[in-house]
Amino acid sequence: MTTIGVIGGGQLGRMLALAGIPLGFRFVFLDPSKEACARHLGEHICAAYDDIDALNKLAQHCDIITFEFENAPAESVAHVSALRPAFPRANALQTARDRLNEKNLFQQLGIPTPVFANIESQTDLDNAVKTIGLPAVLKTRTLGYDGKGQKVLRNNTDVVNAFNELGNVPCLLEGFINFNGEVSLIAARNKNGETAFYPLVHNEHRDGILRYSAPSENHPQQALAEDYALRVMQAIDYVGVMAFEFFEVENGLIANEIAPRVHNSGHWSIEGAQCSQFENHLRAITGLPLGSTAVCEHSVMLNLIGSIPAGAEILTIDGAHLHDYDKAFVPGRKVGHLTLRHANKTQLAASVAAAQTLIGSS
Amino acid sequence: MTTIGVIGGGQLGRMLALAGIPLGFRFVFLDPSKEACARHLGEHICAAYDDIDALNKLAQHCDIITFEFENAPAESVAHVSALRPAFPRANALQTARDRLNEKNLFQQLGIPTPVFANIESQTDLDNAVKTIGLPAVLKTRTLGYDGKGQKVLRNNTDVVNAFNELGNVPCLLEGFINFNGEVSLIAARNKNGETAFYPLVHNEHRDGILRYSAPSENHPQQALAEDYALRVMQAIDYVGVMAFEFFEVENGLIANEIAPRVHNSGHWSIEGAQCSQFENHLRAITGLPLGSTAVCEHSVMLNLIGSIPAGAEILTIDGAHLHDYDKAFVPGRKVGHLTLRHANKTQLAASVAAAQTLIGSS
Repeated sequence: MTTIGVIGGGQLGRMLALAGIPLGFRFVFLDPSKEACARHLGEHICAAYDDIDALNKLAQHCDIITFEFENAPAESVAHVSALRPAFPRANALQTARDRLNEKNLFQQLGIPTPVFANIESQTDLDNAVKTIGLPAVLKTRTLGYDGKGQKVLRNNTDVVNAFNELGNVPCLLEGFINFNGEVSLIAARNKNGETAFYPLVHNEHRDGILRYSAPSENHPQQALAEDYALRVMQAIDYVGVMAFEFFEVENGLIANEIAPRVHNSGHWSIEGAQCSQFENHLRAITGLPLGSTAVCEHSVMLNLIGSIPAGAEILTIDGAHLHDYDKAFVPGRKVGHLTLRHANKTQLAASVAAAQTLIGSS
Repeated sequence: MTTIGVIGGGQLGRMLALAGIPLGFRFVFLDPSKEACARHLGEHICAAYDDIDALNKLAQHCDIITFEFENAPAESVAHVSALRPAFPRANALQTARDRLNEKNLFQQLGIPTPVFANIESQTDLDNAVKTIGLPAVLKTRTLGYDGKGQKVLRNNTDVVNAFNELGNVPCLLEGFINFNGEVSLIAARNKNGETAFYPLVHNEHRDGILRYSAPSENHPQQALAEDYALRVMQAIDYVGVMAFEFFEVENGLIANEIAPRVHNSGHWSIEGAQCSQFENHLRAITGLPLGSTAVCEHSVMLNLIGSIPAGAEILTIDGAHLHDYDKAFVPGRKVGHLTLRHANKTQLAASVAAAQTLIGSS
């Protein structure tokens, strides 16, 4: 029996466990929150991420360690990695948690990115704006998510105090991309170097938070995206599922960011793919063969932000699969998602419309 | 947040929880075994089924109670039913746990059954054999499963000591049915009387244990089976999922037995139906609308008896979904199942053949 330790016990850890328990895996979660929503699916070590005793306990109780999020302290990652096999490896977390490392890696591998500059002061910013021009986006190098830690600079007034507004922390200034759309690629690579790629996913954000994801059919840039992803995964000998976010532009893709973990834009795969991103992550880190990433019927994922409509309403929608994360309702917080799956695309569209009406009014 | 108490913490409880946690439900299992395999998915009250303190605790910790198996003591069912809503209701368990009650109900509702006689002594048996003839099947009225508690009587020598051989307990003698095949119907009925039926499932047993289940396509007796199931569920105001086992005979179906719970022959529905039998049972007992029972692609379920082949082998099979129950390997014990799902029937057949080879040699 293999026991998997997960740093982080939120919804991603919860869904990893829901995918892994049928494979016979057991789970232990390290999460400082008493309310960590994965806690019902395994042992919960309720302690800070840098608590050495807790990290030792996690290693003692587990055979393999993985990460639900890339912002685990580097020292904690190094500590547990010395005690147990841990995937993704420290180098992947190190790359993904800092936008500068990420962009440098893209550049080094010949993957298009927005023009960028490292910003460690307002002076750096003022100088970079002269080169990159406006509009541009200032982003904190670390700890940004769901649109947090970002500021669009449209004119010189926006620039004046921007570095201070983002907290006087290291930032990246990125040239503004006039994109046609946003897509992500969920990729998996196992310990033997075997890889698998899901279809490119169309994503729609609102207020910086993902709202809508749907796998594409025969996306013209599928092969290009897989090529970029393969370069990154091979360069860092990556093991696990990795998400790549791209801007769609005329005749190509521009890499935005990577996440060294299962990703919100891959949640549709639980029902919509033969083998979900969660199962494939677990297969990858435990050295099992990867599962098929082929789609199963047609599907769309909608995030449930802040609250969840009543089950009696939402479950009447044809093809609705509810994922309630068992988290307290807080405005702007991801508390669940809904996957709509159908063999028939017209019926799927009707279900999506019905769900959006319900979610919009909730 | 609704917490569901389950009497029994085996693989059925485990799969109920795996289906219910995404709906936001929490689970508590009452099971006397320290190794109850559902224990990783919720609170485990480790106590005997007739332990009143444990039953009180279960009721205190739960909003709704359900049953993983029909052999919970009648007094325990009555006790918890007085404290919390409990589905299926005591009358359904009472009917299903005794083959005589079951057969009487079928007869009363005009549902064909084998001829049968109640047997409480060897004399009863000798007399019944004169009327029913041989071959016939002697079955204990209660506690039989997976072919246990049964004896086929082919000639008078088999009859001589049969009542004693089955333990001197009340039995039913049933006329032998020369059937063409065995099918089951998984049906659901919710608190509002809404019903849903999965396609009839073809089942194959070996040594009394289910080995193979596959949903049928346009089975000619689908409507008949649904009519029989509806009669039973309406007659006892049933709430939850119920399984009906039938013998297929020329131009009809003969009812064999019912199970007032999710059923092994419905496990394919986790991947193979839009909404699984586990989710529909939970929807039914919590008063939610039932989910679609339409199939999703094509699927076959194979039981894993005694042991499970290595993941590295079994997971290379295209379309394989492993369900490892996390139970100790014991010869003859159900320790997992495998669902093979494919959009393409030819590929499905190839995957089934590959899996059967692997299981056969494991």
